[in-house]
Amino acid sequence: MPESIPDDSIGLVKSSIFHFNEPLALASGLTLNEYELVYETYGKLNEARDNAVLVCHALSGTHHLAGYYSMDDRKPGWWENIVGPGKVIDTNRFYVVGVNNLGGCHGSTGPKSTNPATGKPYGPDFPIVTVTDWVTSQHRLSEKLGIKQWAAVVGGSLGGMQVLQWAIDYPDSLRHAIVIAAAPKLTAQNIAFNEVARQAIRTDPSFHDGHYYEHDTIPESGLRIARMLGHLTYMSDDIMAEKFGRALREGTINFDYGIEFQVESYLRYQADSFVGSFDANTYLLMTKALDYFDPAAAVAGDLTAVLAKVSADFFVLSFTSDWRFSPQRSHEIVRALHDNDLNVSYAEIESHHGHDAFLLSLPQYLSVFSAYMNRVAGECSK
Amino acid sequence: MPESIPDDSIGLVKSSIFHFNEPLALASGLTLNEYELVYETYGKLNEARDNAVLVCHALSGTHHLAGYYSMDDRKPGWWENIVGPGKVIDTNRFYVVGVNNLGGCHGSTGPKSTNPATGKPYGPDFPIVTVTDWVTSQHRLSEKLGIKQWAAVVGGSLGGMQVLQWAIDYPDSLRHAIVIAAAPKLTAQNIAFNEVARQAIRTDPSFHDGHYYEHDTIPESGLRIARMLGHLTYMSDDIMAEKFGRALREGTINFDYGIEFQVESYLRYQADSFVGSFDANTYLLMTKALDYFDPAAAVAGDLTAVLAKVSADFFVLSFTSDWRFSPQRSHEIVRALHDNDLNVSYAEIESHHGHDAFLLSLPQYLSVFSAYMNRVAGECSK
Repeated sequence: MPESIPDDSIGLVKSSIFHFNEPLALASGLTLNEYELVYETYGKLNEARDNAVLVCHALSGTHHLAGYYSMDDRKPGWWENIVGPGKVIDTNRFYVVGVNNLGGCHGSTGPKSTNPATGKPYGPDFPIVTVTDWVTSQHRLSEKLGIKQWAAVVGGSLGGMQVLQWAIDYPDSLRHAIVIAAAPKLTAQNIAFNEVARQAIRTDPSFHDGHYYEHDTIPESGLRIARMLGHLTYMSDDIMAEKFGRALREGTINFDYGIEFQVESYLRYQADSFVGSFDANTYLLMTKALDYFDPAAAVAGDLTAVLAKVSADFFVLSFTSDWRFSPQRSHEIVRALHDNDLNVSYAEIESHHGHDAFLLSLPQYLSVFSAYMNRVAGECSK
Repeated sequence: MPESIPDDSIGLVKSSIFHFNEPLALASGLTLNEYELVYETYGKLNEARDNAVLVCHALSGTHHLAGYYSMDDRKPGWWENIVGPGKVIDTNRFYVVGVNNLGGCHGSTGPKSTNPATGKPYGPDFPIVTVTDWVTSQHRLSEKLGIKQWAAVVGGSLGGMQVLQWAIDYPDSLRHAIVIAAAPKLTAQNIAFNEVARQAIRTDPSFHDGHYYEHDTIPESGLRIARMLGHLTYMSDDIMAEKFGRALREGTINFDYGIEFQVESYLRYQADSFVGSFDANTYLLMTKALDYFDPAAAVAGDLTAVLAKVSADFFVLSFTSDWRFSPQRSHEIVRALHDNDLNVSYAEIESHHGHDAFLLSLPQYLSVFSAYMNRVAGECSK
């Protein structure tokens, strides 16, 4: 392994693209006639084709779970600490698949892709997609990859919602469902935070009703606000106190509107790095998918009923200081699974890192997650 | 009392203005050479001049605590449920004073006032004022009103911070300090929410670096975002679940970016009513005053030490579901007061209304608050 890439990394990786010509009927009633999904795979699919693990991403995630694109690439995939040889999701044992969701901005068809009907970017004409739509498109991808049944489908946050939907929509297509830091639906407060972020983007004059590509601009201010606000809700009060407290950047109060407190500097930095890499229309879509997710809505809110046909074993994880999707929200899922006499493991990880904890290498988290993945691996053919 | 005004209201009221010619040296090092404070009074100052109660307002509050400005006025003062004849702060017993803070936008000198040096609105040239500056200016107002010692100084949220500062800066000028839903300083999370709101305003192209008055516009989008975000943090997850849950405005999902959930409708309504009545530069100033408030900073964060010369009796109130300034923040104040052997009463009100609870008529709140004010009134001369 070359010097610049750590030994325990999967190393150099590349993305692939599948083009789908079968029309996809969406939850909205609209149809996507054709689309592409970009994905990455790590490890080897065994002969029995039963060691595949699908990782679903959250709001700002991608298909790039692990590894590096080049020797000069400084930044590995977003779950590098979890996915790799000998890691929690062990690429020596599993064939791991990451896919960029439809509507995304990292290679799969989305608002910034060219609309074949007009020859211009879809922009706001890209249909609003839902968690169900994502799962349907991911299921088609698994068919293309020759995977009839996933050893596990795994995801955190919005990714965990996709896992839940997989278990509901394709009960025979996965043996284990691993739902991390998720919720069975958003609360009014969750929706409200999303709505403020959307309003920030949509009222930015550079948004041009979503047609900003054609104006050669982006709604940068709005996207910055959305990201800062989102980021705020991913952290706990405690971790912010520990990281920043009331520390001043220059040691003194300046009585102006520049950066005074370290926490302000951090938020602006987060915003800077986000606006360069994320599409505003995709951000809007993703928050809508979050708002709409409510699999039990079709059965009058009865989560137990909607899980009746589920057959996967579940591992549900939550983090004590996560106030975006608190442990109580995971308890709702666990209770409904228990009501259906399903095999459920549940771990509530002690952490002061807030919602972001699912991305971190907390020892207790890695330990229970590894133990569960060991069990999953043990059930796979050699 | 005329039909349109409830019997238990103080009734028709009017504001007064004091012009101050003595320069005011501010914490920032700048000086305001002259300024005006708008205020209202209710009830009668007794002969001993010892029955006066000062109410300090929070971020979006004003001097208009109670009563109506005309027979057609539909909206009473912001603390109408607390201030009035026979009410918690009983105008039959107390002489109650409300004052709009310096930097405000409801009559006291602030960013939208004319800068005598230029003949144009101050705009961004209005100096950033602090809680200490407000208390100094309020103290000058009390001298003008002939009040040497307040029976009580009362305030909620940012108002409560002013009460704490009064007790520190003018220990002989108040007998009771009533601090409601406040904190001895902001956390990093609190500051971060303020910063996101400020960025929303300051990056709105209509902000024009604060000179929007001259462009005959206002940074409406930014101010709307700031208000929606603020409002969100004033409510608890529980009360939002109870008020809105996931209720849809039209009963069905539309798959677009219009108003879908009731909570979105509510937030937009709150934003609409705010932008028409509040000045963006004042909003910025107020959030800065919140960020900067930290009376113990001068003594290495030792709240006990900074309260050493305080002599007022304290009544501290908090609300269980307030996550902006949680009961723990009030405990910090109470502990530091106890360390100084001061008389402290503390009430933690069971409520699911979040930070906003201090504005509401919750029975337990009204009851303990009334009992305390009775005690204060009993100590006043007839």
